[in-house]
Amino acid sequence: MLQQLRSYITKEQLFTAADPLLLAVSGGLDSIVLTHLCVQAGIKVEMAHCNFQLRGAESERDETFVRTLAESYGIPLFVRRFDTETYAAAHKRSIQVAARELRYQWLEELRQERGLSFIATAHHMQDNVETVWMNLSKGTGIAGLHGILPVQGRIVRPLLFATREEIKAYADAENLQHVEDSSNTTDKYTRNFFRHQVLPRLEEVLPEVVKNTGSSIERFREAEILYRQAVEIHKKKLIEQRGEEYFIPILKLQQAVPLATIAYEILKPFQCSTAQAAQVVELLNSEPGKWIATATHRIVRDRKWLIITPLEATASTHFIIEEAQHLVQLPDMLLKLEQLAREGFTVPATASIACLDLQQVQFPLILRRWKKGDYFYPLGMAKKKKLSRFFIDQKLSLPEKEKVWVLESHKRIIWVAGMRIDDRFKITDKTRKILKLELA
Amino acid sequence: MLQQLRSYITKEQLFTAADPLLLAVSGGLDSIVLTHLCVQAGIKVEMAHCNFQLRGAESERDETFVRTLAESYGIPLFVRRFDTETYAAAHKRSIQVAARELRYQWLEELRQERGLSFIATAHHMQDNVETVWMNLSKGTGIAGLHGILPVQGRIVRPLLFATREEIKAYADAENLQHVEDSSNTTDKYTRNFFRHQVLPRLEEVLPEVVKNTGSSIERFREAEILYRQAVEIHKKKLIEQRGEEYFIPILKLQQAVPLATIAYEILKPFQCSTAQAAQVVELLNSEPGKWIATATHRIVRDRKWLIITPLEATASTHFIIEEAQHLVQLPDMLLKLEQLAREGFTVPATASIACLDLQQVQFPLILRRWKKGDYFYPLGMAKKKKLSRFFIDQKLSLPEKEKVWVLESHKRIIWVAGMRIDDRFKITDKTRKILKLELA
Repeated sequence: MLQQLRSYITKEQLFTAADPLLLAVSGGLDSIVLTHLCVQAGIKVEMAHCNFQLRGAESERDETFVRTLAESYGIPLFVRRFDTETYAAAHKRSIQVAARELRYQWLEELRQERGLSFIATAHHMQDNVETVWMNLSKGTGIAGLHGILPVQGRIVRPLLFATREEIKAYADAENLQHVEDSSNTTDKYTRNFFRHQVLPRLEEVLPEVVKNTGSSIERFREAEILYRQAVEIHKKKLIEQRGEEYFIPILKLQQAVPLATIAYEILKPFQCSTAQAAQVVELLNSEPGKWIATATHRIVRDRKWLIITPLEATASTHFIIEEAQHLVQLPDMLLKLEQLAREGFTVPATASIACLDLQQVQFPLILRRWKKGDYFYPLGMAKKKKLSRFFIDQKLSLPEKEKVWVLESHKRIIWVAGMRIDDRFKITDKTRKILKLELA
Repeated sequence: MLQQLRSYITKEQLFTAADPLLLAVSGGLDSIVLTHLCVQAGIKVEMAHCNFQLRGAESERDETFVRTLAESYGIPLFVRRFDTETYAAAHKRSIQVAARELRYQWLEELRQERGLSFIATAHHMQDNVETVWMNLSKGTGIAGLHGILPVQGRIVRPLLFATREEIKAYADAENLQHVEDSSNTTDKYTRNFFRHQVLPRLEEVLPEVVKNTGSSIERFREAEILYRQAVEIHKKKLIEQRGEEYFIPILKLQQAVPLATIAYEILKPFQCSTAQAAQVVELLNSEPGKWIATATHRIVRDRKWLIITPLEATASTHFIIEEAQHLVQLPDMLLKLEQLAREGFTVPATASIACLDLQQVQFPLILRRWKKGDYFYPLGMAKKKKLSRFFIDQKLSLPEKEKVWVLESHKRIIWVAGMRIDDRFKITDKTRKILKLELA
């Protein structure tokens, strides 16, 4: 086992003999064995124990057990007691997520404070196999198949090569004491289902299932590296940065193979989900001018290009419209302006067209995105209304809201574009000339 | 369902409206639904039914059922009865493998005979998910994750998008009759274990497990394409063909990332297993001269190169050379023979040319690859020397050694071709006529 540990450390280049480690020790079987192995291997270690205070006397028992253990080895031990429930409530986390966040935050602080190279956790092959089977059951891309990584930033997992049975056998042979591992409470339901229901059942029929999946995971990890290499090559060919915007040539992208995955990988940095990436692929076959908005970006299908613009870039845009102007090209649409005689004019019943009393309007107009604090007098109402409130009534989604333009005349909103005009600018009996506005 | 089928055919480019299909119809639920869907979609089809005669009356019942079905649709039907057990015994196959071989062989013959474009089978999403879970449990690389492919040569699987429940619901809605699907007997033990024990248990806890895994499989399929693209780029950089041999620069290979997978992919075409590829990686850090033999090739670690040589190239060949002969065409070179007068002749200082005392030579000569036990008297030495020993002094690599030709006169080696003549045949003061040999 010691030899296997050494080989694994070398093979995965986890750390060198000069690197001191911070061992995360719960007191459970796995962490006890990892501690013992590190001591046997002459690796310089310090110990850290998290007391999440979630299991009353059992939590205290574990802490005491680890304290005694550290003393017997003569290894420095650091213990932190967390008020996990308060943290979880304050940060709206599940207890499991809260415990994990607290644990890794503190371990990293402690590592830096103590000048140690890495944090070591005692995850083993079964943990890894469970993770991959869980990911597959829940749906995943190739990244969900690498499982628990041997190195992840400052965290190393030197026991990933070992099965639970091998760890147990080592503990028995070395006569090591342990307490029940509190990490069994993480991801509780699904993981324990795989641990106690699925894998044992599989092992009855396929005794080597853990080792087989374990070695497959190593292969997937390498396959993912190759996958990333190919993705990078496609990215370089397909995306071009110009200032804050990114341009993707549509013809070239259409010819890329495999299209769905390449589109997803290229758009992912712009907060594009798998579903949205599929929509973008559909956009390729649609007319210019259509677009998809992510949380941070707008992906517009132009004539020859997909153009990716940060949302904040469009937020601050103002268009000044002089009286002589009849056309304004916006990033996502076109505004047409027309002055017409009142006589014989019928107001079209389309939200995309607004008809106002030209006399009330003062040029130049300003066309801009709406902002917090904006208000207007919605047509038919005598009272002013905040736009934020108006949007709630209109049941706009957040991305829809972000896309709303307003047209201003002398600091008063005359039209919430495509939605409602301001009552003060409506056509009345006194109106002689009409300003017709149309979005296209 | 019909709409989904059409979308899937388009998305996966399975076939066009002009392509007539050969439907493999067992009479089970899946193939009955596929048939019905194809008829509804106006796809031109013919039907094929295999009677493996493995289940007695039940096999007959299925055949009759499919005959009645084909008649009711007015679709041409072809039925073949197989003596599966005899075939399995004769070819040392399991019944399952025998049935699959017989089935696909006959379907392909029939497809060609009938001038049809594709064979269509009714595999669905559960079949696919079962396959991937089985592969993962047994250990696999990324290729084991693409599952059952929608297109594979001349076979298409238009129902892969559908779950068993959707197929069942369609059959119920359309009031379609079916018999129990005999394909349930394939891969019997493990597959049925996953089908009846594992997946239903998973579905209790994760109701979407089949759809989740199903959509993951589609992503893996694309990930594999990207993986192959990256592998090809590495291959191009790392392997160079020279005649029948392949050369891999050791330094470059050592720097390749991820090494294990790249080595495996590069060596796989030479019948190298995963385990052997790992041994080759170890070879990189060992001394020159060591090698791994696969079923077809030898992979030799030379000084700067891994050299891959086909095994059959080293097989024994003999050429008999009569006195009158002036030219011998060897597989890898040309030997010229010339008889010249001693007077005014200067011996060229080129290893590719040998000049001997013609009087000492006895025809016919034999040209052959050297073999173990061969010895000669190297020019300038009074003692005989084993060729194996001589090659070590000359620092020949193993593939270089394997290519050495020797020229024999009356069972004595007169020339180690291209390297050194035998001292007993050298030109002396007594020489009157010269035998000049030249390799080109």
